Amino acid sequence: MLHGLKAGFSLDAGLETDSEPVMWLGLCELRVMNDRRWPWLILVPQRPGAEEIHDMAPLDQAMLTFETNMVAQALKRVTDCTKINTAALGNIVRQLHVHVIARREDDPAWPGPVWGHGAREPYRAEELRRFAEMVKAAL
Amino acid sequence: MLHGLKAGFSLDAGLETDSEPVMWLGLCELRVMNDRRWPWLILVPQRPGAEEIHDMAPLDQAMLTFETNMVAQALKRVTDCTKINTAALGNIVRQLHVHVIARREDDPAWPGPVWGHGAREPYRAEELRRFAEMVKAAL
Repeated sequence: MLHGLKAGFSLDAGLETDSEPVMWLGLCELRVMNDRRWPWLILVPQRPGAEEIHDMAPLDQAMLTFETNMVAQALKRVTDCTKINTAALGNIVRQLHVHVIARREDDPAWPGPVWGHGAREPYRAEELRRFAEMVKAAL
Repeated sequence: MLHGLKAGFSLDAGLETDSEPVMWLGLCELRVMNDRRWPWLILVPQRPGAEEIHDMAPLDQAMLTFETNMVAQALKRVTDCTKINTAALGNIVRQLHVHVIARREDDPAWPGPVWGHGAREPYRAEELRRFAEMVKAAL
């Protein structure tokens, strides 16, 4: 179990339920969405109260970009997907988090967005662990 | 009418049809999606062939972050929205472009994503021009 390293930061309960920790990056915790329909990673900057990217300090914005793009590149390598989808929405979970999702032309929502599409399908534990290990190895 | 300043760059036909030019930033052309249901801006980096953010040069990635966040902040000021949605999807239009959308709890798709939601509702010309001017003034 990973712990919040930054004083005052605690993970949103919805993110805690729907995703599992992978590793710490410099600014963000990297998590995997527990939904086997898509290879789907989430970066959560460890900044208490942050909701909008543009409200973070400029250095944090640069770090977030660096970490997001590093993760996107790794996910592309691991999945050989057609397209990476990157987004910071936050309409439901207000705590700042960035989605990085691998999309394929035969995936269940293609070419539409994944958010709000049907019901989450959790991985088997072993399957999730294996995916997380592949991502870690590619980073 | 604005022109492509970078040799070899031409705007995707779908983006050309669905959105209107606002101004040039350093790296990107800023455009407004011609859909009055949401205040919706699009940044198009003037890099021929670019499809994924992580495939751009590191300096371009940093510039894109800077311009995106500047635009997001301006759009928030102009609209006083509940939440900014920022995304690079590209499942349909493959040319790299970043969406910056102002969301409100009473908007037609809230809290779901806007992409693929119903049919685009074009502005009246004067209404679009006024919105573009407000964004420009806030930048």
